[in-house]
Amino acid sequence: MTVIGLLTDFGYKDGYVGVMKGVMLAICPQAQLVDISHEVSPQGILEGVFVLRQAFSYFPPGAIFLTVIDPGVGTERKALAARVGQFAFVGPDNGVITPLLRWGQEKRLEAEIVILDQPRYWLPDVSTCFDGRDIFAPVAAYLAAGVPLGSMGSPTREVILLDLPAASPQPGGFQASVLFTDHFGNVVTNLQASEVQVGESLTVQIAGRRIHGMVRTFGERPPGTLIALADSSGYLAISLVQRNAARYLGVSAGDPVIIYLRQPG
Amino acid sequence: MTVIGLLTDFGYKDGYVGVMKGVMLAICPQAQLVDISHEVSPQGILEGVFVLRQAFSYFPPGAIFLTVIDPGVGTERKALAARVGQFAFVGPDNGVITPLLRWGQEKRLEAEIVILDQPRYWLPDVSTCFDGRDIFAPVAAYLAAGVPLGSMGSPTREVILLDLPAASPQPGGFQASVLFTDHFGNVVTNLQASEVQVGESLTVQIAGRRIHGMVRTFGERPPGTLIALADSSGYLAISLVQRNAARYLGVSAGDPVIIYLRQPG
Amino acid sequence: MTVIGLLTDFGYKDGYVGVMKGVMLAICPQAQLVDISHEVSPQGILEGVFVLRQAFSYFPPGAIFLTVIDPGVGTERKALAARVGQFAFVGPDNGVITPLLRWGQEKRLEAEIVILDQPRYWLPDVSTCFDGRDIFAPVAAYLAAGVPLGSMGSPTREVILLDLPAASPQPGGFQASVLFTDHFGNVVTNLQASEVQVGESLTVQIAGRRIHGMVRTFGERPPGTLIALADSSGYLAISLVQRNAARYLGVSAGDPVIIYLRQPG
Repeated sequence: MTVIGLLTDFGYKDGYVGVMKGVMLAICPQAQLVDISHEVSPQGILEGVFVLRQAFSYFPPGAIFLTVIDPGVGTERKALAARVGQFAFVGPDNGVITPLLRWGQEKRLEAEIVILDQPRYWLPDVSTCFDGRDIFAPVAAYLAAGVPLGSMGSPTREVILLDLPAASPQPGGFQASVLFTDHFGNVVTNLQASEVQVGESLTVQIAGRRIHGMVRTFGERPPGTLIALADSSGYLAISLVQRNAARYLGVSAGDPVIIYLRQPG
Repeated sequence: MTVIGLLTDFGYKDGYVGVMKGVMLAICPQAQLVDISHEVSPQGILEGVFVLRQAFSYFPPGAIFLTVIDPGVGTERKALAARVGQFAFVGPDNGVITPLLRWGQEKRLEAEIVILDQPRYWLPDVSTCFDGRDIFAPVAAYLAAGVPLGSMGSPTREVILLDLPAASPQPGGFQASVLFTDHFGNVVTNLQASEVQVGESLTVQIAGRRIHGMVRTFGERPPGTLIALADSSGYLAISLVQRNAARYLGVSAGDPVIIYLRQPG
Repeated sequence: MTVIGLLTDFGYKDGYVGVMKGVMLAICPQAQLVDISHEVSPQGILEGVFVLRQAFSYFPPGAIFLTVIDPGVGTERKALAARVGQFAFVGPDNGVITPLLRWGQEKRLEAEIVILDQPRYWLPDVSTCFDGRDIFAPVAAYLAAGVPLGSMGSPTREVILLDLPAASPQPGGFQASVLFTDHFGNVVTNLQASEVQVGESLTVQIAGRRIHGMVRTFGERPPGTLIALADSSGYLAISLVQRNAARYLGVSAGDPVIIYLRQPG
């Protein structure tokens, strides 16, 4: 039993995800299909990088990540499959593979990447608008069924990398930005929380507001309080206890966040 | 292992879909449950026809389509189960079965249809508001578990048919309409793209706008360009590259689209 | 094969649910994961009680309900696992377990409840913000894999109970309230429909409107009619045939509903 984790911007309304699942189960009935998200913003590649980065390491060995966020569908952009350590990746060459490759580099694992060019592992009729159904889903299913990666395409080492923007140190603190706002309205910044300390006399400035100090968890402050804390992926996040901080502050991905390591003047 | 594909207008909020899945797994633990969509517009039967039509043929042989879009729940409308070729259908008699029957007619496959009238294959207590849980889910699960269709109801040949409205030829082109707008805002018309040619000097008129010519795929034009192309289901569609055409044009299902096969005067 | 039913307020956007599924399949590959809902309103504990109450009894024997609606994450609130008859529960101690315990009391089943305090059944690194991933998902998966409940924590009998508010009888009728509004806009009240009779000359007053009499099902009145009926969970509900009653009336959970058993003066 191989787990295939699905990550797309397809939404849930149109049946596109269901069709990909039908395609995969027709090829590999024993695959275990797990939705990671299908509500990545349309064409939101960077958001896909963030969500995959948070998720992949929790999946069982052998898991295949089928990620289709694909503004370039039908163009010359390449189609990829890859194996990095115990995980595999299938999707367009648009950078979403980056978290897997970076993790492999850290762990000094060999990455095997191919450009998908063997139509015998695709659906017989390939439309120009839905490679998720016609190319990526069948390839993921054949991988799950045990077809060797190497037989599906030509080796490559050149793929697009898309790293999440990093916070930059500046005198007295960091210039950061909003990476992601989640379903609860938690505002995840791109500053690794390990760069700062809980309780450190830091000040976070966002959307004209200042938050002094950092707490360990939500319940330390009453509902409605704006707090800074290390979130579950290890980033510094801003939350409004039991409310929606993103909506309250009116912020979204890309907005600036300044962190002062001590009280600004 | 039998795949059951679920298509409803139940949404994801209330647990209704989860309850149907619980019912099915209690009867047939080895069923493989796949969501096609649960975000069909409430009572959107024609939308259900469209989504099922796009999806069913990609499912593995033996797949059972459990479709519950059911404005007539609790009334005298009949409850159906059917087998058409390698596929089966379970749901209210409201026309959503049509794409399977039309496909069977094209392929000259025998269709076996029954009116569900054997309560021993239903839940013991049937409420008047949730046949999806009480009748259709158990019937689909018993079918998946191998109970013969014929033992679940009385044969019939009279079911409601609901074909998608077709575009009509008119001098110099077609009078078409919007069938569906998808999650990305692609506007799918009811003109089969095979009726026209890529590059043909056609003009599409929609919501007071004119689009000249037809492209093969999204990436041929810059972001924000209004294009006409053949979509993944074979219909002519109007898209706004990397944006939401439906929102931009303010159109929805039923709105008129005129196709001129050459430059209008 | 054990079914794990998931009920959270995590939404579908962020990958949080997918991560929990990855965690569970890594521990118990043969678990069958079923989404009940992930669109409970953020921190909506009472809504969780309602949805679990409607759903659990339809699941197969052995089903484990993993419910994570967790405003108190990271605080001293306890983490629970329990077995009640053929069902199990894993989640924070916030009252969502109540429908299982009440059902067990009715059926005179022994309930075994433990406070989760054995970190060897958790992920190695426990963050302070995502016990669903770090504690509850692994515990549910170990339970599904056959680890005895008793080895996961210390027995307790003191858990938080959160019963749905009941309608109160008053001279000539009931003072009720809105429990839940569903995806279709059906307005579910907290009056058990068995307290009143279909056809009884009752009047329901809600949001300044009065509905006279009670029907058996939607199809008895034309589209757009406001009706009262017994819904699929046995409560009195107010619906607008083929439309959205909640939006039409502008009501939501907690709003008052008065039921007069005969024509008010």
